Amino acid sequence: MKKKIGDQNVLYPTPVTVVAALVNGKVNFINVAHVGIVNAQAPHLISLGMNKAHHTNIGIRENGTFSVNVFSIDKMAEVDYVGLVSGSKTDKSAVFETFFGELKTAPIIRDCPLSMECRLHDTYETKTHDLFIGEITATYADESVLTGGKVDLAKVRPLLFDMSSRKYWSLGTPVGDCWGAGKNLIK
Amino acid sequence: MKKKIGDQNVLYPTPVTVVAALVNGKVNFINVAHVGIVNAQAPHLISLGMNKAHHTNIGIRENGTFSVNVFSIDKMAEVDYVGLVSGSKTDKSAVFETFFGELKTAPIIRDCPLSMECRLHDTYETKTHDLFIGEITATYADESVLTGGKVDLAKVRPLLFDMSSRKYWSLGTPVGDCWGAGKNLIK
Repeated sequence: MKKKIGDQNVLYPTPVTVVAALVNGKVNFINVAHVGIVNAQAPHLISLGMNKAHHTNIGIRENGTFSVNVFSIDKMAEVDYVGLVSGSKTDKSAVFETFFGELKTAPIIRDCPLSMECRLHDTYETKTHDLFIGEITATYADESVLTGGKVDLAKVRPLLFDMSSRKYWSLGTPVGDCWGAGKNLIK
Repeated sequence: MKKKIGDQNVLYPTPVTVVAALVNGKVNFINVAHVGIVNAQAPHLISLGMNKAHHTNIGIRENGTFSVNVFSIDKMAEVDYVGLVSGSKTDKSAVFETFFGELKTAPIIRDCPLSMECRLHDTYETKTHDLFIGEITATYADESVLTGGKVDLAKVRPLLFDMSSRKYWSLGTPVGDCWGAGKNLIK
């Protein structure tokens, strides 16, 4: 039996990312799990729903570039930490080592499985949040998470977020083929 | 060592949803895993990145309402099936039983753990995709997935999507506290 439970968002789990940007010339990090996928072909667009109060938003607007970094469960403490303190008061620039890619102003985290370097494509604004829509210009993968040149989520062991339990979760195992598991139902 | 792997989107896994809408008066379903979360407070906004070629888009535009239904791994075949055939050619209205809520025109799936009834808030268009931004007006949960009145992902056992492997994945276990796991790093 289904019951109404208000108007809560139950679209979880989502991957926990660390967004990196230069704010007034200094590298800053924040964790963001309110992410989204806009389309399914190049140029690939992804979205970040970020409260306007965040310090990182200033840098994304300023430079029009940022990176979105996917983390493994091993780094849960560091990933959680960059969401606990604001870059407006605390220097978080040394939490992760970074390098710069072709966009020049988007710091990219070195020690994480996957990073997407993004150019700010557009900002969709709500009263409280900036929905930053980024175009992925380059993707970087640690060789240790590739199998036959492809990203292997079993090796990435991504950190996932759930608002209801306020817990981080791990990923389970593959359970079937997309565009395949339902083939037998075609009449 | 990190290497460039093109410009691919690696923001996975994402929850697999079945989006339900009335198209020309008939219930239609499609699976959508290119979802997103826009903000973190009411009115709760979520996004669906849907190729403009899909039949369901017509109904979402027509009625300005739809539902987003979260499925457990048990129903993988049915969920996959509604993404394999188009409602323009195949009547999928009997795949899931539905009911209508307060919006009157958004069919809501009865036999799934979680459903969000949505009013179309806005449509952000790209050349190939409609990013439908929905305002959640009501959320429905099967009592079997609640623990102490809260959604329990361990009971939901959500079906997750990964583009790289083209596999559906299961969820693992909780690994730590959000806004907690990094507290020891605060100086």
